[in-house]
Order: sequence, then C-alpha cells, then structure tokens
Amino acid sequence: MPTVRKIINDPVHGFITINHPLLFKIIEHPYFQRLRRIKQMAMASYVYPGAVHTRLHHALGAYHLMCCAVKELKDKDIPISQEEELAVKCAILLHDIGHGPFSHALEHILVEGVHHESLSLKIMQAMNEEFNGALDLTIDIFTGKYAKPFLHQLISGQLDMDRMDYLSRDSFFTGVSEGVIGYDRILKMLAVKDNQLVVEEKGVHSVEKFLIARRQMYWQVYLHKTVISAEKMLVHILKRAKEIFVETDKNIVLHSPLDYFFGKFDGKIDFKSLNLFCQLDDNDIEFAIKKWSQHPDSVLSGLSTWLLNRALLKCKLQTHPFEEDYIKEKKEKIASKFNLTKEEVGYFVFTGDTTNTTYQLGDENILILFKNGQVQDISSIENALIQQTLSTPVKKFYICFPKGQTTVNI
Amino acid sequence: MPTVRKIINDPVHGFITINHPLLFKIIEHPYFQRLRRIKQMAMASYVYPGAVHTRLHHALGAYHLMCCAVKELKDKDIPISQEEELAVKCAILLHDIGHGPFSHALEHILVEGVHHESLSLKIMQAMNEEFNGALDLTIDIFTGKYAKPFLHQLISGQLDMDRMDYLSRDSFFTGVSEGVIGYDRILKMLAVKDNQLVVEEKGVHSVEKFLIARRQMYWQVYLHKTVISAEKMLVHILKRAKEIFVETDKNIVLHSPLDYFFGKFDGKIDFKSLNLFCQLDDNDIEFAIKKWSQHPDSVLSGLSTWLLNRALLKCKLQTHPFEEDYIKEKKEKIASKFNLTKEEVGYFVFTGDTTNTTYQLGDENILILFKNGQVQDISSIENALIQQTLSTPVKKFYICFPKGQTTVNI
Amino acid sequence: MPTVRKIINDPVHGFITINHPLLFKIIEHPYFQRLRRIKQMAMASYVYPGAVHTRLHHALGAYHLMCCAVKELKDKDIPISQEEELAVKCAILLHDIGHGPFSHALEHILVEGVHHESLSLKIMQAMNEEFNGALDLTIDIFTGKYAKPFLHQLISGQLDMDRMDYLSRDSFFTGVSEGVIGYDRILKMLAVKDNQLVVEEKGVHSVEKFLIARRQMYWQVYLHKTVISAEKMLVHILKRAKEIFVETDKNIVLHSPLDYFFGKFDGKIDFKSLNLFCQLDDNDIEFAIKKWSQHPDSVLSGLSTWLLNRALLKCKLQTHPFEEDYIKEKKEKIASKFNLTKEEVGYFVFTGDTTNTTYQLGDENILILFKNGQVQDISSIENALIQQTLSTPVKKFYICFPKGQTTVNI
Amino acid sequence: MPTVRKIINDPVHGFITINHPLLFKIIEHPYFQRLRRIKQMAMASYVYPGAVHTRLHHALGAYHLMCCAVKELKDKDIPISQEEELAVKCAILLHDIGHGPFSHALEHILVEGVHHESLSLKIMQAMNEEFNGALDLTIDIFTGKYAKPFLHQLISGQLDMDRMDYLSRDSFFTGVSEGVIGYDRILKMLAVKDNQLVVEEKGVHSVEKFLIARRQMYWQVYLHKTVISAEKMLVHILKRAKEIFVETDKNIVLHSPLDYFFGKFDGKIDFKSLNLFCQLDDNDIEFAIKKWSQHPDSVLSGLSTWLLNRALLKCKLQTHPFEEDYIKEKKEKIASKFNLTKEEVGYFVFTGDTTNTTYQLGDENILILFKNGQVQDISSIENALIQQTLSTPVKKFYICFPKGQTTVNI
Repeated sequence: MPTVRKIINDPVHGFITINHPLLFKIIEHPYFQRLRRIKQMAMASYVYPGAVHTRLHHALGAYHLMCCAVKELKDKDIPISQEEELAVKCAILLHDIGHGPFSHALEHILVEGVHHESLSLKIMQAMNEEFNGALDLTIDIFTGKYAKPFLHQLISGQLDMDRMDYLSRDSFFTGVSEGVIGYDRILKMLAVKDNQLVVEEKGVHSVEKFLIARRQMYWQVYLHKTVISAEKMLVHILKRAKEIFVETDKNIVLHSPLDYFFGKFDGKIDFKSLNLFCQLDDNDIEFAIKKWSQHPDSVLSGLSTWLLNRALLKCKLQTHPFEEDYIKEKKEKIASKFNLTKEEVGYFVFTGDTTNTTYQLGDENILILFKNGQVQDISSIENALIQQTLSTPVKKFYICFPKGQTTVNI
Repeated sequence: MPTVRKIINDPVHGFITINHPLLFKIIEHPYFQRLRRIKQMAMASYVYPGAVHTRLHHALGAYHLMCCAVKELKDKDIPISQEEELAVKCAILLHDIGHGPFSHALEHILVEGVHHESLSLKIMQAMNEEFNGALDLTIDIFTGKYAKPFLHQLISGQLDMDRMDYLSRDSFFTGVSEGVIGYDRILKMLAVKDNQLVVEEKGVHSVEKFLIARRQMYWQVYLHKTVISAEKMLVHILKRAKEIFVETDKNIVLHSPLDYFFGKFDGKIDFKSLNLFCQLDDNDIEFAIKKWSQHPDSVLSGLSTWLLNRALLKCKLQTHPFEEDYIKEKKEKIASKFNLTKEEVGYFVFTGDTTNTTYQLGDENILILFKNGQVQDISSIENALIQQTLSTPVKKFYICFPKGQTTVNI
Repeated sequence: MPTVRKIINDPVHGFITINHPLLFKIIEHPYFQRLRRIKQMAMASYVYPGAVHTRLHHALGAYHLMCCAVKELKDKDIPISQEEELAVKCAILLHDIGHGPFSHALEHILVEGVHHESLSLKIMQAMNEEFNGALDLTIDIFTGKYAKPFLHQLISGQLDMDRMDYLSRDSFFTGVSEGVIGYDRILKMLAVKDNQLVVEEKGVHSVEKFLIARRQMYWQVYLHKTVISAEKMLVHILKRAKEIFVETDKNIVLHSPLDYFFGKFDGKIDFKSLNLFCQLDDNDIEFAIKKWSQHPDSVLSGLSTWLLNRALLKCKLQTHPFEEDYIKEKKEKIASKFNLTKEEVGYFVFTGDTTNTTYQLGDENILILFKNGQVQDISSIENALIQQTLSTPVKKFYICFPKGQTTVNI
Repeated sequence: MPTVRKIINDPVHGFITINHPLLFKIIEHPYFQRLRRIKQMAMASYVYPGAVHTRLHHALGAYHLMCCAVKELKDKDIPISQEEELAVKCAILLHDIGHGPFSHALEHILVEGVHHESLSLKIMQAMNEEFNGALDLTIDIFTGKYAKPFLHQLISGQLDMDRMDYLSRDSFFTGVSEGVIGYDRILKMLAVKDNQLVVEEKGVHSVEKFLIARRQMYWQVYLHKTVISAEKMLVHILKRAKEIFVETDKNIVLHSPLDYFFGKFDGKIDFKSLNLFCQLDDNDIEFAIKKWSQHPDSVLSGLSTWLLNRALLKCKLQTHPFEEDYIKEKKEKIASKFNLTKEEVGYFVFTGDTTNTTYQLGDENILILFKNGQVQDISSIENALIQQTLSTPVKKFYICFPKGQTTVNI
C-alpha cells in the first residue's frame, strides 16, 4: 500500500509534506487543531496588521524545517534511525501544544505559575496514553532524556527549528525585513560532533546574521512599545476580571470554560483542569473583552473598551527606571481624572521592565565546527561580531498610562 | 504645523502611508477597527493555514493601491482635485465596512437578504453624520453618482483596487503562487479616456495575467472543495441554531448581540439592528460553535464539533448535477446511521452549486486604450487570450456528506 | 571516504548541491565553463537590463530542478536506479552544451544549418570519449533511445526541467512577474504512468498557469519588438561581415577562431571545426562589433555602431504581413538617405515573421493522471483553459528600419 | 506636450521611471551605454553564478532610489528645487561613469594611479560640454561644492543611494540573503537637519541592519577567498601582459584600444586617452585572456588558461601575515615544478592583504535625529550594536598559489 502523503501550502517555506500515519494522528487531534485558534504573536497585529498567523501554522513550519535538518544530517552520514526521525518530527510538532490563549502574553496569568513547556509535556503525555505509547521516544527527546542530545537541541537550543521558524515566519507576516534570516543556509551548515549540534565554519556569518535578526525582531517587534502596551492592557484586564469575578455577576461570567479559571481553579493541573484548559483559545478572551467593555466596573470596562477599539495606553520605553515622583504624579493625575481609588489607578498607570539578550554566554551555546575538526563557541572566534557586549542582557523599563486625548492608533 | 504621517508595515505592499486627519479618523473608528476581527477569507485557512489575514488589512492594502493609482493618473495629467483624491481614498478604506462575521461565507445568513454593499453604505452614512458630512463626496463616489465615473471604477469595477488587493493578498497569505498578479505593472498602465478607466495597450498581457490569476484563485482556493465543505457546514450550523433558538435555552444563548439576530430581529436594518450588527465579528461565531458543540441537539452539536476540530464533511465537486437517486441513497444511509429525521438529514447531506466567470462580457468591461487613441474591449482584440469561452460562466455542483470514517484533515 | 559536496548559491532556486565526481568533472570541463560566457537571453538585456544571466547558470538551475523531480518520483516509488539518476542529471547539465555565441539569436548563422541540439550531441560524444564512456547512458537518455521514455521527457518535453528553469530564471532576471510559474507545485505533481511522464489531476491549474506564463514571456519578452530589432541587427551584422570578409582586411579580421567561421569553414562539423566552435563565446561577437563599428563599409559600421550604442532600428510588429508598397517605399527612402545600393538597403530595412504556440496539440503532450488511473491530454479535460484556440500558432510579422531621428533607447 | 515617460523593469526595485529629456540624453549616451558591458561585481560570478549584473543596471537602480529619497524628503517639507532634484538624479546616474573594465578589480592597473571617481568627473565634464552646461549643477553636487551638503551625501556618504543599491542588488543577484537590507524603511526614515542628511530615531535598527549586512557581504562575497583568487589572477595577467608587451608580438596585440594602455599611454588623462578609455569594457579583457591563453610566454598563458577555465589558484585567508619561510618554500616548490625564474614565480605565488571596516568613526558619520531634535552619531547611542569594536578595521592576509592538482571549481 502506498504511503498517504499530504502537501500543505506554506507561504513561508513553500510546500510542507506530511507522510506518516502518526503525524496525521497528531495533526488531526483536537488538541493540535486548537492551536489554529491561538495567534502566534498575541497582540502584535495591533502594530503589524499582518501578524495574525497561528500557533498551528508555526508548528507545521517548524516541523518542515525539522524534515530539512534531518535530511541534511543524514546526507552527512549522521546516524539517525527511522524511529528517531519520526520521534523528533513529532516532538517539534508538539513543542508548543501547551500554549494557552494569547501565548506568551497571558502565560502565568490564566494558569498561574505554570510554564507552557510543562503544560506541553502534560498534554503530550495525555496524547501518548491515547496513542498507546507511540509518543514514548518523542517525549524522551522533548525532555532531553534521550542519549543523543543533538536531537533535543534541534527542538530546543540556540539554533532550534522553533526559533528558526518563528523568526522567519514572524518576519514574513509582519513585513519586517530586518528579521529575515538565511535559515536555508544555516540548515545546510548543521552538523553533529560528539553528539552535539554544531555549525560548520562556513556558516558563521549566517549564524551571526541569525542572532542579529533575532535582536532586531525583539526591539522592533516583540518589545515594540505599542505591542507592550496592548499586551499589558490585556494582562491587566484579566487581573481585574479575576479580582472582581463572582459567578453570580451575569455581566462577567461567560458560560464557557474560562469561568473555571477565574473561579474554582485551585492552581493544580489535574485531569479536569487540563481538559478545560484545552478548550480555551483566543476567541474566549476576545469574546470576554467585548462583553466586559459593557461591565459596570469602570476599570474593567475602560480597559476592555480601549483595547477592543485600539485606543491604547501610551507606553514610554527607556533604559533606566522611571522616577518614583514621575510615576506618583501620573497616578494622581489619572486617579483624579477618572475618579479612581489608589488600588484601581494601578490598572491604568503601571510600570515594568523587559529584557533581551542577543547571545547568552553560558550553558546554551552555538558551537562552530572548524575544518580541522576543532569545536569553538561562536563568541570566542576571531573577529567575532557576537562579543561580550552583545551577551549582556539589555533591560528596558516601560510605563503605560492613558493619553491626554485619544490620538491615532492603527 | 507639519502633517502627521504614519507608516504601516505591510508584508504584501511594503509600507503604507497614512497622512490626512480624515483618514486617521476613519481608521480609528470602532466600526473600522472591527474589521480587525473579521477574517478576509472565512474558512479558507482550513486548507491554507496562512490565510488568516483580516478585512482591516485588506482595506489598508486597497487604500495603498489607490494611493499608487491616483499618483499614476495625476502623473499622466488626469485632473483629480485634492478633495476627489481624499474622497476616493476614504471610499476604498470603507468599501468593505459592511462585512459581517466570516464575510461572504455568512452573507445573507445572519442578516437575510441584505447585501454587504448596502450595509457598507448604511454604515458610511452613519459615520458621515458623526463626521459632520466629511464623507459626502466619498459616498457619492462609492454609489457611482459622481460625475467622474473612473473614480467609482477604481473602487468597484473589473480592475478596481479591491480586486487588485485581495488577489495579491490572498495569494500571498495562502502561498498559492498561481494567484500572483503583476499589480504594479497594471497600475502603471492605468489611464483615463472620456472619464472612463482604461488600460494602455502595453498593459494587455498584465491584464490577461490578472484575469487568469483570478480564475486560478477561484478554482484552487475560493471554490476548493474543502473550503466549500467548511463554509457550508458553518452556514448549516447557523441555520440550525436559528431554527431551534429559544431565549430560554441556556445551551444556545450566547449573552451577546448575536442572540438578537437569532431571535428578535425582524429583517429591517434600523438604528438598533445596525448598531448591534457592528458589534459582531468572527469571535462571536467561533465562540458559539465551541459552545454549541456541547448542545443536546445532535445536529447542532455534531456539525459544531466536526467543524471545530476540522473533521469536515466530504465534498464532491463535478460539472453536472448529482443524480436524485444518488442523493437520496446518501441521505437514507446517513439518516439511518445517525438516527436523523428526514428534515434533519438535510443538515448532514446537502447539495448546491457554485459559479465562476473569468471575464464578464457585458456592462462591466476592461477597456484597452490603443496608441492611436482608440478604445476597445479586451475580449475583442486580436489574438485575445480572453475569448468567448472564458466568458461563459462555469457552474460546478457539489454534494457534502459525512465520511465513512474520520480521515486525515489539516 | 565521505562524498565531496559543494553548494552553489542560486538566487532563483536557493542552494544547488553537487555531490558526485562525474558531475564535478562535467562542470570543471572547459566546454561547460564556456557556457559562463554565453548569455542565456542574447540581446534581451537591451530591454530588460537584468537579463544578463548565463547558459551555465541555466544549466545548473535545470540540474537542480532535475534533482527535485527525481526525488519526488522516487518518493512515489517510481523505480529509478542510481545509474539512471546520475545519467539523467548529467544529461540536463549538458543539454545546452552545444549553444554558440548569443544562443538562439545566432543559431544557424555562424554554423549554417546545424541545430544546437546536434552540436550538443557531438560535444557530449567528445566528452564521453575523454571520460572513457562514463556518459554512455547519459547520451542514450538525451537522444531518447533509452527504454524509459519519462527520463528523456524530463530533459526534453512539454514539462521538462529545461523549460521549467528557463521560464523561472528569465522571469526572475527580467523582473517580469507575468512569467513566474509555480514550478515547485508542478514538480510535486509529477508522476509516471506506463513509463510516460504525467501530472496528477490536482496539478492541472499549475500546468495551465505554466503554459500561460510561457505565452506571456513570449509576447512580453522573447518576442518583444525591441529585442527582435536588436537580435535581427546582430544577425545582419554577421551576415554583412561574412559577405565582405577577406583575410587581408585588417579592419575585419579578429585574430580569433571567429575568423575561421567567416572564411575557411566548409559547413562540416569535424574535429577541427568543433574544437574551434568550442572556443567561441559572446565576447568574440561583442569584441567584433566594437571593432567593426570603425570599418570603412558603412553598412557594417552603421549597424555595428547603432547596436553598440543601443541606437536600435525601429521595429513594427503586426498580425498580418506588411504591404509590398510600404516596404518598397521605406527601402527607397532609406537607400536615398544613407546612399545605399538596392542590395545594401536590405541590411537596414528588412522584414520577417515570428511564431508562438501556447500549446501544441500533437505528439508532444501534457498528460493528466486522474485519480481513477485514467490518463488524458490536458486540452481534452472539462472546462479546459488550454483549448483549441490556444493551440493555433500565432504568427506575427515585423519590419525594422532606421528611425527618422535617434530617440530614447535604454 | 505631455512628458515622455519610460518605464524599465528592474527585478530588484520593480519599475524605474525615466521622465526628463536630460535623463534620456544621459542614458542614451555611448559613455553611459558602455556601462552595460562592465560587470558590477567583476569576477564574483566565479563563485556566485548569478552575479553578472552590470554597472548600467546599478546606475539605474541607484537613480531609482534617489527618486524615492527625494520624494520622501520633499514630503517632509525639505526644500529641494526642481533644478536640484534633476541635478541630483543626473549625478547618481553618472556617479560610476568612470569605471573601467572589471570595475574595482582592475582599478589602478590599467590606468595607473587614477581613481575611478576622478575619471567619472572628467567624463562628466566632457559630457557637460557636449550638453552645453546642462550638467553644471550636477557636477557641483557631485564634487561636494554645492551649498546643500545633504544632496552630495545622497550620492556619496555612509547611507548614499550608491551603497543602498549595490548592497540590495549584489545580494539579489548572488542570492546571499545575509546582504538583504531594508532599504525601503531607511528611505522612509531619511531627513535633513542643518543641511545634513540624518536618519530618524525609529530607523536606528534598520541602519544597524544595513551596516551588518554590508559587513556580511564583505566577508561572504566581496572578500570571498575564491573571488580574491580570481581577481588577483586577473591583475597578474594584466601586469604580465604589460611587462612583456611589444607591438610587434602578434600573439599579444589585440588590435583594440587596449593596446594603447599597454604601450604608448604615458599616464596622463588627456582628450585622447580619455576617449580610448571610454571604448574599453569587460569584453576587451575577456577577449584578451582567451587570446593570451595561447601565448608562448608560459606565465601569461598559464594564468590566462587557468582563469579562462576557472582552474583557479588556491587562496588561503587568515588574520595574521603568512610567515616568510612558508612563502619562500611555496615559491621554490612552484618555481621548480613550473620551471620559473625568481621573478616569474611571483605571478603564480603571491600574497597581499585586504581590509574591511563595518563602521568608520570619523568624518563620515551616520547621524541619528531624535524626537527632541537632537542629533547624535549612531555609535554613541545607548545600547548600540555599532560600537568601538565594529569600527576597528579588520585586516585579512591572503596567499595564492597553484593547487597540487586541479580540483573542483565552479
């Protein structure tokens, strides 16, 4: 019987080929299909209107890059068995399965203190049970327990297929050319030495480009001050909703699984809460915000209305913390203008910080394989672009507050 | 005071410049921002995962092409006043303002018998009142009443900026290269003769390419059998919900404006219904489908669950109608399998037809301007690719029904 | 010993991988390197300044597509042995090895009556001798003698890798988006049935797009009237040079192998003439034209100067022959203006015709493989874009003559 | 009378519009058309086969970017008169008019000690005379004498249209994505402050990207060791030819203006030598190399044959000079193998160095305009990517010598 093969059009990578029953089973699963309803870049589309692509699309794209990477490594005579190949493909398909509504923007908010990767693992385990253990090896690779570390590094590492795809994809859908990476060249230069993923010497410039592109995407897109404003407004809306939530308030309950996480949820990820979590997606939040824009609580309705109509808080970004006096003054002015208590004004005027590191010197390195067989960290090679200074985390501080008058927002 | 200028990144066209207060007012308006929550291509992302771009993005893109077109025409000494220029730009920004959830897929379903263009007009009129008549000329151009027909043709005609943008955009986000058009070349070739929009002789091949690309997009994307299946399932879900809707059924009411259109709405677009309509977007429908997937009515919950998880009905497409016996047999089999009444089975097994014409000979023509000043319809030129045969509408017939067993769906 | 692998950057297809010693031997060969000095599109760069890519680049690109096609067919379990795979790759690398200076534009002019494919074969045979028969199978496939016709069809047929590459490449380098084809999708849809190359049903639209794109490239690029003018001027320069060539004329001899083909060459392709032919490339012609622009013969120097400086003859193109009277009048006017004899004026004023067929009904078909296993010609399927009318050759007639005054030429 | 307008297809920038008689006169001029026969990237096509684009194409592309830049600045109310606009466009069209065969690779070799910019000026002056002073302002801007320095900076400066175009173009034709710059965004961010060209704050990341892209192109393309090898071989071929040139040697004379520069030329650029120089292009050199590959002098014929057939010298590149002993040993080995004198072996074994600086701190800065009106050098802003370390010139040392045996060369 011939293998069933399916081809998916991807504007970023061209054609993605699915050609194994287990891959089909994963993709067909409601847990995977749910990713179709979670935007990859949360609120970034408020600044970059094209950035509405989904986690499902990203998962498929990362899977495609994995197929390419595995092919390259096999062409270079790196031993990878058929089982390992399938498992590492399943692992990349599932690597983000634990993402909730609005991905990173709401992580730790809805399900406090639980990282999306640990949710991913729990969901994989649930699926593995359903699939009678077909994902055993997948899970071992995903958790880094498997004897060939380079397989794990393809999923999670400085040059993993996750980053390679999201940078390409986010750059494509935002139209920010500064983020375009030469992923195809990097893939051609991947190799394995002592079971570690390495990059051939000739690929150094492409890796440098990749790191710089990542840096550019952080400052130009992910940490764009308007994106920060929108995402922090979203966080504050959910915080306020949690705070004032009572099941009897018909203006706040949604008659959906989301209610559970505002009310009865005790912070434990058990069978019930996992199942309810897997019913959530961006729609629940967007539906809620529309509803809450009519709520009698002016904090909740104010933030919700503004976010809904993209009348965002102003966000200032700078490299040192804002002065206490400045913040205090802002809060007093806004509290008085909107008639808010001291606690409430913290929903309209708030500060925070955000960090980005171009290259982390430390346990997660990019190793360069020289022609003579030596392996060296990219930061230690001659004439390195990636030096000490780019390895220092850069912290930026923000403050958000309502504008004096509504101005243009797109 | 310098003009405020804002630049938006568009992966399709590059940078879009907004540079007039009235344009900003339109874009900031909640009615326009609502388009952010309506997908341009309805369910097409079930086949083409990248196709999740929004009506707002399309409106901005069409506006950008209008800026280019107007610049070209002015460079060719076509008289266009500043007022006309602004008005035609406003008109293209607003041309789709009347679209409801899931655009064309649900047109005539939610708001029976009302075309989205007439809703667009009503909404423009409401905004015009709010803007103290600033949209008067815009509306005259939109409705075709203005004395320079070519301005209306730029908004609605065989070569309007709407089509030019949606073909480029849909092709870009689906990754279907067959739909790529050379819009930049067509724009360069636009001219005006006797107040009619025409294309210079040298642009004939680009226009041919454009018409063929449109044809390809119809057959490969818009009328793809899996897209048809998903969209018709959506239609049948809404029909069923309307049919069984009672306000007291807590499993069906949504506590959102959508309820109104299932219940009290009397078919008239008045102030109240227009206002409620403008609160709707894709989220309402997607939220509803998740909720209804738990409804006791097995028709509603069945279709909803399947659509939610992309376990779509099988769709067959052919050039002649399906035979009555074949349909009857299908219905009987499915009715028995799912224990359905004769009426109910029509929700699971249904037929219909769909039509596409590459080029309509008739009142809406593409006129070619020859070097000698003559104007001729594109279908009548020598060696035309666009001939009689491509002007005949092509009708295809479909049948949808549940598969024998769930199979692969992406 | 690990296989030597080399990767070449191609802006059109990405990375091209060379990974077999025989492929390296071919590419290193002076006969192949010569293709580096022959432009793929002859004089087209006079209209499309980017169109200066070379035959060598095209050969590498077609080779790359062959690698993709063979991979696809093998993935679909079509039996292709390692020997066959290598041979078909060699054959596509060498398919244009017989091209002389300015490719098609000068074919039959320098070496009268010899088609470039028969020169390709002779050169392959010479190389095969040098390589001790390593190209035996390559030659059998190239000449269509091998038992698996589909291998030959990949090199020469309606959907061969040659066309697939040159359309993509020419479209890329000219910037004519009308010529972009979805070659990756066509490659995915290739299959083999009864040893014939076929296309799966789902690929019909992509093939249609391919045929239309080819048609567009013919009318917009290959048969662009300014390109015709430049190429026919080149032909007439060489004709004139041949006519007046004497070895003692130091203003015409070039002291290069080109002299041989003007003088002693007797029309037979033997060892000596083949060897000299393989020393020719575009540079010889371009060098000659610069030299001849100073020649005392005003016909030769006139045409050469004009071509050198892109002061081209005016070219008119129409669908019916030019009237005898019109031609006669033109000739008389020009003869008088430039003081030319009746014979000489034919170098400045000349007519001809040119033909293109979108799809040839006949022995070279595109076969569509339907899901039910049936095979049908693409022109016979329902709702075909490729119909009778597109199968009729379209003849166009041209006349070239000096402009009244020099006007803009880029 | 309507303006004559011509549109040129450019695969890099789309459509280029020419719309002024003076622009047409420049483009039609034989001196400008000559650039059609000079490759932009000299021998780089030996490594990147697509890199065969011409100086003419680059000049048109830079002109196009100038049109965009001027439009942006005028939209920002920077006063630029029609005369200035035309002049700055003419200046960029002509900025490379002084390039000789193989551009930079042969600069200072053919015409010793004369920089191409001073040749450009001389040629512009000659054309200005022919055009009756129409280029007066053009020349003032080109030479930096005009009162608005920003106009000169658009032609020659850290962010000039020359660099912006060549990086985009070279990246496009090589297929090296690492060199892609976001030129459209930089153009949008250009402004003028105190008559100096500056970049708005929001453009910082795009400028950083541009500088890094330039750095990548240097190391990956312009200073690629195989490109160095080919270009230095070319230089040594010309040096050898000059050395042994005698007019009576029929194996070395070319019967072309090139002979003059080997023989009678006395180093002065006067009317005669300028006129002869303007008759030279790449073809003369390529024709010569083919001829010289048959020359009795084994140094000349050896290098010529190797270069012709891409059997290049091996090139080693490192960050410190090669040791004298190593060089001496290499020379002795090669002298003995090829039976060469001590002087002759210097043509086959030679060393040199090459330098690149990412950003020059010094008189030629990139100035960033902050929202508060302040202007700061890009290297001095907070969290700068462009720091001290990237401003240090990086020197690399190379040695070239014949390989032990011919190996793969593409």
